[in-house]
Amino acid sequence: MDVESVRRAILDQVDRLAFKHLKHSLETLVDIPTVSAWGDHRVMLDGASAVASLLKELGFKTEVASNGGYPAVLAEIRGGDKATVLLYNHYDVQPPDPLEQWDSNPFKLVEREGKLYGRGVADNKGNIAARLAALEALIPYIDRLGLNVKYVVEGEEEVGSPTLERLVVDRIEWFKADGGVWETAYVRRDGRLSISLGFKGMVYLEVRIRGALRDVHSGYSPLVPNPAWRMARLLASLKDEGGRVLIPNFYDDVDPEFLDMGEKLLEQVDVGELEALKEELGIAGFVGGVSGREALKALYLNPSLNISGLYSGYTGKGSKTIVPAEAVAKLDIRLVPGQDPKKVLDSTIRYIRTLGFEDAEIHVESMYKAGYTRPHEVIVEASIEAAEQAYGLKPHVTPMAAGSGPIYIFTDIARIPMTGAGVGYYGSRVHAPNENIRVEDFVKGVKHVALTLIEFSRRMGERRA
Amino acid sequence: MDVESVRRAILDQVDRLAFKHLKHSLETLVDIPTVSAWGDHRVMLDGASAVASLLKELGFKTEVASNGGYPAVLAEIRGGDKATVLLYNHYDVQPPDPLEQWDSNPFKLVEREGKLYGRGVADNKGNIAARLAALEALIPYIDRLGLNVKYVVEGEEEVGSPTLERLVVDRIEWFKADGGVWETAYVRRDGRLSISLGFKGMVYLEVRIRGALRDVHSGYSPLVPNPAWRMARLLASLKDEGGRVLIPNFYDDVDPEFLDMGEKLLEQVDVGELEALKEELGIAGFVGGVSGREALKALYLNPSLNISGLYSGYTGKGSKTIVPAEAVAKLDIRLVPGQDPKKVLDSTIRYIRTLGFEDAEIHVESMYKAGYTRPHEVIVEASIEAAEQAYGLKPHVTPMAAGSGPIYIFTDIARIPMTGAGVGYYGSRVHAPNENIRVEDFVKGVKHVALTLIEFSRRMGERRA
Repeated sequence: MDVESVRRAILDQVDRLAFKHLKHSLETLVDIPTVSAWGDHRVMLDGASAVASLLKELGFKTEVASNGGYPAVLAEIRGGDKATVLLYNHYDVQPPDPLEQWDSNPFKLVEREGKLYGRGVADNKGNIAARLAALEALIPYIDRLGLNVKYVVEGEEEVGSPTLERLVVDRIEWFKADGGVWETAYVRRDGRLSISLGFKGMVYLEVRIRGALRDVHSGYSPLVPNPAWRMARLLASLKDEGGRVLIPNFYDDVDPEFLDMGEKLLEQVDVGELEALKEELGIAGFVGGVSGREALKALYLNPSLNISGLYSGYTGKGSKTIVPAEAVAKLDIRLVPGQDPKKVLDSTIRYIRTLGFEDAEIHVESMYKAGYTRPHEVIVEASIEAAEQAYGLKPHVTPMAAGSGPIYIFTDIARIPMTGAGVGYYGSRVHAPNENIRVEDFVKGVKHVALTLIEFSRRMGERRA
Repeated sequence: MDVESVRRAILDQVDRLAFKHLKHSLETLVDIPTVSAWGDHRVMLDGASAVASLLKELGFKTEVASNGGYPAVLAEIRGGDKATVLLYNHYDVQPPDPLEQWDSNPFKLVEREGKLYGRGVADNKGNIAARLAALEALIPYIDRLGLNVKYVVEGEEEVGSPTLERLVVDRIEWFKADGGVWETAYVRRDGRLSISLGFKGMVYLEVRIRGALRDVHSGYSPLVPNPAWRMARLLASLKDEGGRVLIPNFYDDVDPEFLDMGEKLLEQVDVGELEALKEELGIAGFVGGVSGREALKALYLNPSLNISGLYSGYTGKGSKTIVPAEAVAKLDIRLVPGQDPKKVLDSTIRYIRTLGFEDAEIHVESMYKAGYTRPHEVIVEASIEAAEQAYGLKPHVTPMAAGSGPIYIFTDIARIPMTGAGVGYYGSRVHAPNENIRVEDFVKGVKHVALTLIEFSRRMGERRA
């Protein structure tokens, strides 16, 4: 049975298995509210156990591993000596807030007009379910392909993967692989799969300014310092109106090799998607008035600083008159290759102190650097070829995602070239209310994973032969 | 029976009736969560009905009146032709948020170590209960005093009394009186009662800035405008670090006659209270570094602008990475005599537009002007005399409270000179969690109200004689 016959035998099963896992796996996973930001260990263990069970059903040898954080599932199935691939996903999800903006329960998988709704269907539980379907089709032929599959599913991605690096370092032999598939990829408006070859780093900070020991009747506002005013002044000093970050040396260490590679890859990226994004979001223009290629560079190659959350005092209905006791801002800084998270954190803190906020309490929620893969790697070429077959169109390959993820743990520490695969689309509302995927993308996504692994085995086999 | 005998007969009953109404009236009132900001008409009607029943039990003729807003209770009892006094209170309360900072249910009256806890015990249900106790002692002698008592208890004070002016204008004959007692007064650290002869006006605004139609994954923050940054910039432009409001012409119209009168009264006010306030609130210094007499002027004679609430994006635990769809600030502007609310509102809106926030949505929650009474009025002198007797110390009289209230409706529209009375103290945590009063202050407060009305009748009788 040659690779072509194996390929056909596998593809024959893909549709059926896609629908099986939409029910069997995705429903099970969405049901469990694995919000890592909420910090419920019991729920997170339920999530990990559910993933482990689903993998066990397929024949994987599984282990639920933890070194202090929420557990990660390590699973392995061996099929020979041609190639070892590492799949990475996460079973944790973002909080569902604001809850009132959901049209259905975020923790129940609901189908409406060809779309599936629920927290995590795009990020990242749908991608787990799609890979399970692809693997179920593939596993009967795994020996013929000569493929070993390693699968790690962690539970802390949405809070910055604080213990994943430790796990990979401790088990560095287990994490050896010839190529890897990162947690995500998504379908663009033009129907092409968008694969990101890197992910930004992250420094997530909670900044707290305190005033009086308690809220005070705002009649006293002429005298009692208001932390909300001070927070407004602090935030207004961090970035200019054009979006440029004002923290000294913020842009200094960006890796020029990455910028070169990135700018070249971006030449092949079309900018139409950005115009459609404006319309979908109902915004008149982008920050700083950028457009076209400049906007692409800002999105994919620049570090950024953002306010994800801000609160102080009374946030309920109607009016209440107080000088609030505290003001809190949640800030996310996204890093590109070359930037050191610790150094960026230090200069951010130093700058905030220089501005006169010696008393601001700065708590680091997560911190990790960016990582990326160069486009000529076997796993990347295999996934590009597979995407063209599964989606009928050449994929769209960007040097870096707009988003962050601790991919450096694989690319830089375990030294595994990484590509992407996923079932979300441009309208998936990742991290937002009414997160959803399209059923058709799920089926294509299953096909893409199966074909990527087949193509990867074939190419690695040819290399070794 | 001369006034002195009446006085002694009334005072004999005061302690007993104070304790009776602590249970009978205050418990009943605190039980009903009459939060006017929440907008529950049924609950507010329950509150008004409870007040009306309590007054009816004392022999008042009562009416529950409404012209579109939450109902007000109008009650009257007639005792002759020497003097008519108008009592004003409100049965509505501030929201109890943040709930988790209360040590007991805010809507259950709880006694702990000589203090009574519950939302509204100081502002303003405790004052209603104290007046009911004083009135129960007084009513048997009302004919001998020649006193008519009118009592209005509204349900919209905490949301800016939007329909009270209309009620007073429509019923201007009913609202005729020789003097009035405003809703509040409080006991200072030095044991003296603090009476305010005026209350600031209010312009309460909710400012909303919108960005994208929905929250967006913050990977897009280099492109998608973030309303939280814009709000920070807007707020930072409204006030300088020294606390000076930057809205053009903000300070222009302050009444010089009021300032003269105010500065003279403040000369008799001691500044020790302010130092104690700093310590109690755990703050190193006041806004702009003011202290002593300058701080008193800032507190009592200056208009102010404050952020009472601020929110945008994710305000839950841990991290979520989004570009928020909107940012909201709740601003309270407190006006002093001479300032026109409409004019201040207009220049505030114009200034916000000039700053480049043409799209900021500005919603007016409430708007009214300041009002005050000159210190030589009979009702003021009566209440000062009564306070010296009830508290054993000369009261502390300020030209204006730090807080706001629609007293202008009485002082300027109904033309009634107004004094103050109340049972709260410096540690009452008005508008904040664990609002409380001291039992001893309640008893003294009952005495003060009774003596004020006796002394007022006596002085008015002498005048007419």
